[in-house]
Amino acid sequence: MKELVFGHKNPDTDAIVAAKAYAYLQNQLGADAEAVALGAPNEETKFVLDYFKEPTPRVVTTVSNEVEAVMLVDHNEVQQSADDVKDVTVTHVVDHHRIANFETAAPLYYHAEPLGCSSTVIYKEFKQNDVEVPASLAGMMASAIISDTLLLKSPTTTKEDVVALKELAKIADLDYEAYGLEMLKAGTNLSSKTEEELITADAKSFEMGGKTVRVDQVNTVDLDEVFAREDKLRAAMEKQSSEEGFDLFLLMVTDILESNSRLLVVGEPKDVVEKAFEKTLSNDKMDLPGVVSRKKQIVPQLEAAF
Amino acid sequence: MKELVFGHKNPDTDAIVAAKAYAYLQNQLGADAEAVALGAPNEETKFVLDYFKEPTPRVVTTVSNEVEAVMLVDHNEVQQSADDVKDVTVTHVVDHHRIANFETAAPLYYHAEPLGCSSTVIYKEFKQNDVEVPASLAGMMASAIISDTLLLKSPTTTKEDVVALKELAKIADLDYEAYGLEMLKAGTNLSSKTEEELITADAKSFEMGGKTVRVDQVNTVDLDEVFAREDKLRAAMEKQSSEEGFDLFLLMVTDILESNSRLLVVGEPKDVVEKAFEKTLSNDKMDLPGVVSRKKQIVPQLEAAF
Repeated sequence: MKELVFGHKNPDTDAIVAAKAYAYLQNQLGADAEAVALGAPNEETKFVLDYFKEPTPRVVTTVSNEVEAVMLVDHNEVQQSADDVKDVTVTHVVDHHRIANFETAAPLYYHAEPLGCSSTVIYKEFKQNDVEVPASLAGMMASAIISDTLLLKSPTTTKEDVVALKELAKIADLDYEAYGLEMLKAGTNLSSKTEEELITADAKSFEMGGKTVRVDQVNTVDLDEVFAREDKLRAAMEKQSSEEGFDLFLLMVTDILESNSRLLVVGEPKDVVEKAFEKTLSNDKMDLPGVVSRKKQIVPQLEAAF
Repeated sequence: MKELVFGHKNPDTDAIVAAKAYAYLQNQLGADAEAVALGAPNEETKFVLDYFKEPTPRVVTTVSNEVEAVMLVDHNEVQQSADDVKDVTVTHVVDHHRIANFETAAPLYYHAEPLGCSSTVIYKEFKQNDVEVPASLAGMMASAIISDTLLLKSPTTTKEDVVALKELAKIADLDYEAYGLEMLKAGTNLSSKTEEELITADAKSFEMGGKTVRVDQVNTVDLDEVFAREDKLRAAMEKQSSEEGFDLFLLMVTDILESNSRLLVVGEPKDVVEKAFEKTLSNDKMDLPGVVSRKKQIVPQLEAAF
């Protein structure tokens, strides 16, 4: 019985690559799996797919019209998944995030580890099952690790990510440091994007203390270039919040060279943001030195403050 | 930093053995882990601990007074866990049940597989980490698989449980078929138990459709012997439901030799039970031929009917 494999909405490189990698592994193990995506690839992912001459996965928004069962990678929370994920059976999850808003009626395969990247978890499964990683897939999985760990500089980076990246780069015959910088920069071409695109591209929703909290992350090599567009960004965030019902919207702009972030906050309760990071907002903005990871340095702190 | 490792409330053999096995594995891998239990061992588990001359784990009801972090085995749902599990960080879960009522603030290690027994999942981790299983632990893990799969006869049994049981029995130098029957019979000595004990010993709570549903399973070699006590069992279930706030209480009495079960149902909504099993209740009772697994043949069907 065919199953679809996909990462979260607003896919980043890991969401798309992990789906491709897990579908490949499952097919090698005898399943009938197709990797799809819940959105079009971003600039960085396009660079990766071009570089390794790999096809873009088919984009879907619903899955129950095609299959009865699915495998989730790089997410588990229902609001980050396919719109109708509740109408299908989730048979597998491979992830590296917290577990929340996830419930099944029956036992399933669930493999999550607190590592920097889903593709690192999947690489471990290739090894456990003695399945070889083809060179181009290894290159894409290396790219996903570079993307999620900002070239091993994010505090989410673990020893296992370092080992996996080095081994995958070797299989792909890739100079991962030179390639990685080129890839990350390809993802920070922000000037061609509208404000609406910037606040949507890598955004995720979370339920916290009864509120819907939206957190978007934008990577850049120049914070000031992004904040020159602050008024328009703020207007776009307010518009989207009222249209989509977000109570609180955090835009996290991350300088990937300096490893710092600046927040822009719209909505309420703003005092929870100040409590979470023990810092005062100034014109709804806050500098967070050393903060680059939404998953490790933003979401748990907000969760605790709520 | 020390962590406690434990299975669900009203522990069965797998809940206690899996905690011991996982604590042993984690300590071999460098953690500081102690196996504890959320209740005293039942008759079957006492037989197992005696047979392999293993100490009974310390019984606790709360954990935050001792540690900041815990590892869960053989369960994940909050109502089946330590009373104050929300006050500690769950760093690891190893399980073989559905995922529900479980939420974390941060990423964690979570390894669940749809296999017959948690100890089978843990045995796979011993292998993945190249850690040897000591003989007495192997005997206990074999016992847990025999217990959960009713000597490989339950429909929850998978190929991996069969392989694990055979390998563990070999390590323990155990004739698992002869030993298994002896062990299962030791667990069905019901005459010495009060009705209160019978409806509590292996009971689990589930949240379904806004209702608290209690499902207890009692293994026997003679259904009629148990139902000779029907009036007293019913009275005990009604009393406990009103004291503990259970909306619906199912007592599932399983003949482990014939692989059949008979349900006794107290509370409401009873029509959901009839819908779940497509069968009419007669005096609040229902025979379910071939049904031996709460997890696979009762809970998902109830969940779907709700």
